[in-house]
Amino acid sequence: MRLSMIKINENFLDLQDNYLFSTIAKKVAKFQEEHPDKKVIKLGIGDVTLPLAKSCVDAMKKAAEELLYKESFRGYGPEQGYDFLKEKIIKYDYKSRGIDLDLDEIFISDGAKCDTGNIVDIFAKGNKVAITDPVYPVYLDTNTMSGRAGKYNESTGRYSNIIYMPCTSENNFEPQFPDEAPDIIYLCFPNNPTGTVCTKEQLAKWVKYAKDNKSIILYDCAYECFITEENIPHSIYEIEGAKDVAIEFKSYSKTAGFTGVRCGYVVVPKKVYGYTEKSEKVSINKLWNRRQCTKFNGVSYVTQRAAEAIYSEEGQKEIKENIKYYQENAKIIRNGLQESGFLVYGGVNAPYIWLKLPDGVKSWDFFDELLNNIGIVGTPGVGFGPCGEGYFRLTAFGSRENTEEAMKKIKEYFIRESKV
Amino acid sequence: MRLSMIKINENFLDLQDNYLFSTIAKKVAKFQEEHPDKKVIKLGIGDVTLPLAKSCVDAMKKAAEELLYKESFRGYGPEQGYDFLKEKIIKYDYKSRGIDLDLDEIFISDGAKCDTGNIVDIFAKGNKVAITDPVYPVYLDTNTMSGRAGKYNESTGRYSNIIYMPCTSENNFEPQFPDEAPDIIYLCFPNNPTGTVCTKEQLAKWVKYAKDNKSIILYDCAYECFITEENIPHSIYEIEGAKDVAIEFKSYSKTAGFTGVRCGYVVVPKKVYGYTEKSEKVSINKLWNRRQCTKFNGVSYVTQRAAEAIYSEEGQKEIKENIKYYQENAKIIRNGLQESGFLVYGGVNAPYIWLKLPDGVKSWDFFDELLNNIGIVGTPGVGFGPCGEGYFRLTAFGSRENTEEAMKKIKEYFIRESKV
Repeated sequence: MRLSMIKINENFLDLQDNYLFSTIAKKVAKFQEEHPDKKVIKLGIGDVTLPLAKSCVDAMKKAAEELLYKESFRGYGPEQGYDFLKEKIIKYDYKSRGIDLDLDEIFISDGAKCDTGNIVDIFAKGNKVAITDPVYPVYLDTNTMSGRAGKYNESTGRYSNIIYMPCTSENNFEPQFPDEAPDIIYLCFPNNPTGTVCTKEQLAKWVKYAKDNKSIILYDCAYECFITEENIPHSIYEIEGAKDVAIEFKSYSKTAGFTGVRCGYVVVPKKVYGYTEKSEKVSINKLWNRRQCTKFNGVSYVTQRAAEAIYSEEGQKEIKENIKYYQENAKIIRNGLQESGFLVYGGVNAPYIWLKLPDGVKSWDFFDELLNNIGIVGTPGVGFGPCGEGYFRLTAFGSRENTEEAMKKIKEYFIRESKV
Repeated sequence: MRLSMIKINENFLDLQDNYLFSTIAKKVAKFQEEHPDKKVIKLGIGDVTLPLAKSCVDAMKKAAEELLYKESFRGYGPEQGYDFLKEKIIKYDYKSRGIDLDLDEIFISDGAKCDTGNIVDIFAKGNKVAITDPVYPVYLDTNTMSGRAGKYNESTGRYSNIIYMPCTSENNFEPQFPDEAPDIIYLCFPNNPTGTVCTKEQLAKWVKYAKDNKSIILYDCAYECFITEENIPHSIYEIEGAKDVAIEFKSYSKTAGFTGVRCGYVVVPKKVYGYTEKSEKVSINKLWNRRQCTKFNGVSYVTQRAAEAIYSEEGQKEIKENIKYYQENAKIIRNGLQESGFLVYGGVNAPYIWLKLPDGVKSWDFFDELLNNIGIVGTPGVGFGPCGEGYFRLTAFGSRENTEEAMKKIKEYFIRESKV
């Protein structure tokens, strides 16, 4: 027998088990078991509740029907997605904002989680990665898996090789340029979990910074459709020069309720370059195309037709109604929390409301208090990173009735109890 | 300005541009341009031509309709897939063959290309990989990207760190145990591209070999539904002990014409272990689950319902009819080629027919001869690896009419010309 054996990727062992949502689920289950009579309202998870737009459903049914006949059947599609969808994206999501993109700069995928997760494949292990704190865990976990995170420090809750950019009320949730310039910079605006945004001027500074430092920006704007204010960029390519330094991730999950349908896309401009150890320039677009052609086989034709329908006149009307519904929920939550005396961030240009707890109150204690006293479930801020401690996330994706009921209960509880 | 810069994964530069299908497309386009009057019959690519089963289309339409209503809407599903589909897989694909699997040993995906590509994430870079030659290029390319292939040797057409197991008519296409035991062994039966199979006895030897060497077998049986002969395993778990050493990849692409719908699954038994450098055992099932939960968000609900419909009585009837149609095509191709004097492999338990060219005839020369003289497109065997030189692949996925016409032309051409 040989001495060698199949060896695992030990970077996986450096992952911290993220018990956030499973702990929440367990606590909720326990509460419901002990209080079967009490109603629980869940405003914790980022899943949508409104059904799909009729235009999208009709498009799916039509596309499915096409597959029934030899003449209209479609087998393998392009790994990068069908032109019919890419053309709509270019016209409606970019051209309309004065941004020119080519068809081969768009890659259709089955969602932003996959794209933001898979993108690490094309970069060297030795790159230095910067993320905000708090952060969407996928950025961190996928870099941990691929060996860029280093060792986890239990006491700080941080990895040795990751550059953390704290985003708290102290800096108005604006990430600051780190002392050591990173190679890869993850930015997510409108932000998950804080719901805060970045102005064009702020984002322009990041583009310049990336250019100056030969870094790349991985820009996640999955929540772009929730922006209501002027001067907030919907795409990083609204910033001059961004096409040289940024990849952009977009998703139909929240825009059009596609959380269960699975479609998104990534924009990789042809002018974005990476470098070899010998400082030779390499096209990132070509690398990503090669990655996708090798490990991916395109998104379901039926799904791509559903996504295309989002851009129809009727589709736009329908999804905008849904977005408005969630935006109204966000406003109700913001107002309700403010009336209860809380400091509240986000919720204006995002479906997430980030609530600052009174001094000394911990995220998980607040979670327990809310659940046990008024049956409301949110997400403890610390679950998104150490700087999330003392914060709490509520989402606007619940039903109107539940959102209103939850706010009524919160107001009654906190104003009556003078807890804040 | 700092001296560092964003660095690419240079393993990508070790990839050999696979011009196989693009070269074929270019040659065909040129031929058609020069001979606009001549019919071209494509028997080269592995895409299906029959439309989807009505049961699957109906299931998709019904599922799409469900998403239109609040009461039946589904958002994020389980990353591992819905139980309704996993239960059918366990019952019909495994239990029926005496194999017991648990729900959490099945992972639904958007296809075998993604799964066979992504699986490399969970293994250490230092593992030694064995593939057959010829081979489905994804196994090789994804290991090249992740740094396991070493350097490419232009003159041999091989990578320095990959263990190649030649499969030619000389060894009856049965891969032999390599001199150096590999950590990861890719096996694909029924085989793409050769169309050959492996008996239970042969496969049992591989399971024992993997066990003895603490290796893992990545078993791709995407073409299992084409098996017609007895004693050919449909699943590696028909072999005792395989649950300790093998991961199995399955696809609905060819089984049910899902090439454009995208669904497959991977089986990762809980008894399969990998090891750390310190020889600690780690559950491969847990690693894969973590990989999928971090980088994947499940397959479209609509697609999973379509896959479920494959297992209905009507669905089974429909897909079996389609499979029979392709099997009949395979027989027509085999017979036609044999009558023309060729040595033919595969096509009995697989949709691929692997044709041995007369001594000294090169794959690409034969490609040109077939295209230029009788307008028939196949795939040069050398495109799948150096041992594919002198072979040629035809697929059974064309229409009956085209398949018959192609064979008529081949017979006329080769018998008349006495070329063989």
